[in-house]
Amino acid sequence: MLNTLNSLESLVRGRKPGHSLDAPFYTSADVFDADMEAIFYRHWIFVGVEPDVPEPGDVATVDIGKASILLVRDDDEEVRAFFNVCRHRGARLIDEEKTTVGNLVCRYHSWTYGLDGRLVHAPHMGVGFDASCKGLKPVHLRSLEGLLFVCLADEPPEDFDQLAARMAPYIAPHNVRGTKIAYQSDLIEMGNWKLTLENNRECYHCEANHPELTVPLFAYGFGFAPEEMDALDLENAQRYDALRQTSHAEWESMGLPSREIDELDTRVSGFRTERLPLDGDGESHTMDTRAACRVPLGRFSTAKLGGLSFWTQPNSWHHFLGDHIVTFSVLPLDAGRTLVRTKWLVSKDAVEGVDYEVDRLIEVWTATNAQDATLVEMCQQGAMSPAYEPGPYSPNTEMLVEKFIRWYIDRMADHLAK
Amino acid sequence: MLNTLNSLESLVRGRKPGHSLDAPFYTSADVFDADMEAIFYRHWIFVGVEPDVPEPGDVATVDIGKASILLVRDDDEEVRAFFNVCRHRGARLIDEEKTTVGNLVCRYHSWTYGLDGRLVHAPHMGVGFDASCKGLKPVHLRSLEGLLFVCLADEPPEDFDQLAARMAPYIAPHNVRGTKIAYQSDLIEMGNWKLTLENNRECYHCEANHPELTVPLFAYGFGFAPEEMDALDLENAQRYDALRQTSHAEWESMGLPSREIDELDTRVSGFRTERLPLDGDGESHTMDTRAACRVPLGRFSTAKLGGLSFWTQPNSWHHFLGDHIVTFSVLPLDAGRTLVRTKWLVSKDAVEGVDYEVDRLIEVWTATNAQDATLVEMCQQGAMSPAYEPGPYSPNTEMLVEKFIRWYIDRMADHLAK
Amino acid sequence: MLNTLNSLESLVRGRKPGHSLDAPFYTSADVFDADMEAIFYRHWIFVGVEPDVPEPGDVATVDIGKASILLVRDDDEEVRAFFNVCRHRGARLIDEEKTTVGNLVCRYHSWTYGLDGRLVHAPHMGVGFDASCKGLKPVHLRSLEGLLFVCLADEPPEDFDQLAARMAPYIAPHNVRGTKIAYQSDLIEMGNWKLTLENNRECYHCEANHPELTVPLFAYGFGFAPEEMDALDLENAQRYDALRQTSHAEWESMGLPSREIDELDTRVSGFRTERLPLDGDGESHTMDTRAACRVPLGRFSTAKLGGLSFWTQPNSWHHFLGDHIVTFSVLPLDAGRTLVRTKWLVSKDAVEGVDYEVDRLIEVWTATNAQDATLVEMCQQGAMSPAYEPGPYSPNTEMLVEKFIRWYIDRMADHLAK
Repeated sequence: MLNTLNSLESLVRGRKPGHSLDAPFYTSADVFDADMEAIFYRHWIFVGVEPDVPEPGDVATVDIGKASILLVRDDDEEVRAFFNVCRHRGARLIDEEKTTVGNLVCRYHSWTYGLDGRLVHAPHMGVGFDASCKGLKPVHLRSLEGLLFVCLADEPPEDFDQLAARMAPYIAPHNVRGTKIAYQSDLIEMGNWKLTLENNRECYHCEANHPELTVPLFAYGFGFAPEEMDALDLENAQRYDALRQTSHAEWESMGLPSREIDELDTRVSGFRTERLPLDGDGESHTMDTRAACRVPLGRFSTAKLGGLSFWTQPNSWHHFLGDHIVTFSVLPLDAGRTLVRTKWLVSKDAVEGVDYEVDRLIEVWTATNAQDATLVEMCQQGAMSPAYEPGPYSPNTEMLVEKFIRWYIDRMADHLAK
Repeated sequence: MLNTLNSLESLVRGRKPGHSLDAPFYTSADVFDADMEAIFYRHWIFVGVEPDVPEPGDVATVDIGKASILLVRDDDEEVRAFFNVCRHRGARLIDEEKTTVGNLVCRYHSWTYGLDGRLVHAPHMGVGFDASCKGLKPVHLRSLEGLLFVCLADEPPEDFDQLAARMAPYIAPHNVRGTKIAYQSDLIEMGNWKLTLENNRECYHCEANHPELTVPLFAYGFGFAPEEMDALDLENAQRYDALRQTSHAEWESMGLPSREIDELDTRVSGFRTERLPLDGDGESHTMDTRAACRVPLGRFSTAKLGGLSFWTQPNSWHHFLGDHIVTFSVLPLDAGRTLVRTKWLVSKDAVEGVDYEVDRLIEVWTATNAQDATLVEMCQQGAMSPAYEPGPYSPNTEMLVEKFIRWYIDRMADHLAK
Repeated sequence: MLNTLNSLESLVRGRKPGHSLDAPFYTSADVFDADMEAIFYRHWIFVGVEPDVPEPGDVATVDIGKASILLVRDDDEEVRAFFNVCRHRGARLIDEEKTTVGNLVCRYHSWTYGLDGRLVHAPHMGVGFDASCKGLKPVHLRSLEGLLFVCLADEPPEDFDQLAARMAPYIAPHNVRGTKIAYQSDLIEMGNWKLTLENNRECYHCEANHPELTVPLFAYGFGFAPEEMDALDLENAQRYDALRQTSHAEWESMGLPSREIDELDTRVSGFRTERLPLDGDGESHTMDTRAACRVPLGRFSTAKLGGLSFWTQPNSWHHFLGDHIVTFSVLPLDAGRTLVRTKWLVSKDAVEGVDYEVDRLIEVWTATNAQDATLVEMCQQGAMSPAYEPGPYSPNTEMLVEKFIRWYIDRMADHLAK
């Protein structure tokens, strides 16, 4: 009855397809360390957006596991990333989440780095000291139309280029670089990061738990078992599917790619996208389904653009509406705690209190995030029980959870094989 | 001078009879895990009383280590126990300590179980899904005249039947099923669970630490070294022993078994009982030694029934008085923290404020519990010192501590031999 | 890029001279345990001063790792040290940091020890019990002119005698035994104890971080790279060096040894001392560089005595001024937390509010300690990053940091070779 922590290898090999993971994947500190090593220190991790560092000299810090990362806008307008560690005695350079600097100065002994990472001043180190090999350690960074991904590995996965090429046409019209961050929330979920992702990858739980989110979202998009539905249900489901098809055609004719791409478990940098129609007025993720911001993103002539969702493995999802964007970054803290960072972006021309109200903008996802945190915590508590065993995913409503888990298991197996 | 964590096997083999345990038994997280595996997940654990779930649909949760257990009163009036884990994605089903339900519904995806644990509804799982093998996992449960014991093992110790047969005549007259819970306290002691038990199994410490408890309890019952006593002391001790004998004879003639049974270290489900006379008016564990509740338990015609104590290995002790019952359940949290849950039961016909006052009812044991928590913490702090080494138990006052430890060591040795 | 916790042996062998340590030395719980075992449980550890227990019966407790130690002033005026663990069931005997007692009584079962540690009373233990072998376990203690050092090992390093012989003439004139503790602060730094020591062993960081401390301290004493200095700087530095030489000569003619002794990495009980001139009025570590207490220590006829600094490996530093003494004791709590205990001593004849004000007395070091705590925390955070790697110490300003680390590595290597 009791779970024993077998070796990671046998846990990975023994994963039962179509089922949730064995308990140690959610609860073990050793598996967590392996997750950081194999997944978060080696894949492309979504950490923020260009509007986090809008001006030269702007610096943002973000933690991936035990690695604090600096995102820096250099004087040439490029965003660069470095490890937030002084090369002298190893002090953390910048403590604030956001700041603006001329140079990056370690306050311990005044070692001074340029915005490009070069060590430009290190007093009293003597004549033999070679500053040129003591610059800040760089971190690979890619901006996908303003969405910032970093990879801590020396050799990052190469397939991000293909992801970027296929996704750019979907994302570019929403003009991330033309936005500002209207609000950010940091929520610590008391559960393993994979439970956070599993929860995100299905809407089977939405009807019973998300009264706000199910206002703009169509329930028929959550998946269902056809044999459990009556004639009316089936008719509604078919009507929804027809709406999806016509909406795709209409949006694509406007130059907005909308059809599903699903590469969740078919590549190292797994991802998925699709633009979906919304219920009611069909404009936004708000309680009245109308735009939360009067200034549209990009050059949109209508607000009725549905919601473009974009997911990346292992740690992000995003909703691009006509009037705003919501980005989610999942940052594991330990085996049982996960930071979910949510940013709401609006046009940088929009004026708070005039063009949008923050309360209304963030209402649906603030409520939804809090509800999801409770669900994830319930699962973490259950996974700690000696009675827990992997349970079956619904083939009708949890196919994308299965794809996330399959991707994870494949990546771990690949790592262990090295 | 410093203790090293040897293998559990050599620690068990190396235990010095008549002495407290080696430090790792109190301080090591590894030994704690072994304790849970070998002791708490395999033996009969006292978790509560039938009055915890008086009506059909009443549910109580209790944690044994990392296992949350549901105690459920079914519509047929039977109490059943299940692991508190949904068979779908493993969510904890019930979060509250007490609740009343029609069915057991997982709020994550609405999987619904009957009070008998059967899965009665699991939406969208598709045609191939077999609900019959996805009922809640049952936990073995036994009600000893209303005292609830569970065992998480597949095959629980069989000797509980003999314990029950021998103890039922002692306990039945106090009519646990006819009581209600007047008060419950949950106290976290900052020490290992075995220190909590060791402290409970002797009254050598009572004189110096328990001014309230020593009002009803006779000091001569705590044990003593005869050679340290003067003539008057010895005469008093003989008088106490004579009182004990005559009281036993008197109570047994009333149909109340009272003589000692000591099976603490002679069986897997170790236990001990004895009814002891009380000082003063001899009625109850109160500051004036008189009954705290005017409504007697059972059909007693006198309140002067002394105190029946009943201990079970590894985690309970109880005091059955004529007017109320106090039950204690020891639930380990980690190597250095232990929950002591105390319930005070009175007749369900008694009315608070009329027949009893809660303050007066709980006065002696609330003070005593707090004092014991301090003593246990002192021992835990000492056991962490590199200078700690096992010390000698008094052969006059700590014989039953030795029996607890011997039982524990035997059970661990038996587990390791498997 | 990522640090792996190699075996301690290879970490010790692989230490790169002239550089900070590999990350596990600062972050690993296993290395921390080894540090306690090899360093803090085997070397002479500074724990307090005789004025902590001024009168017979006075008791002070201090924790070295998991060992609580009793410092007891016996009736013969001698200070003795014992492990704070009852020999019966292992309870911690004394919980308070300071108390005064007649005997040392365990409140659990009243076992009673004399101030010399002998067990004088143990009730109910029976005729075969031999109290003579159950006295409190003694701890080696040495008072160096009133500074108290303990060693938990059975066989402490013998070279403390030489340290004491060489240091006594420096310290004795300040008359520690004639002082009282005017103030004590306990500050928990969120970093490894070695970072606390590294930070203490250099003043490279002082100019940028310690505006208060750099009032009495001459910057030229911090070390510098001559090739980075202009003519004026070099002239000032030479002037400072000349002042140091003439001050030494003057103080030594007054009977105050002042010249540097540096045995930091040349012996098991490593230490260093030197009396340094102070800036301004040159009297004390105060914001106006004048004495904080009107009653001089010892029999000094002038307050202008500079500051005698005395360091011991692994855990102390001290400043002896003409009017007061500041002692620092570093007590590791875990890999990432360290207690820094600071005591300010003044003549026991001085009257608070008349001869000294506490605020003024503690101003400089209270500010400096808080600044140092921030610096240590920055380094701890950096050392946790997978990007951290050992960085170079300045050959001009961090020579004594290198000596501390070399001492530490030598002691660990010596321990591992046993």
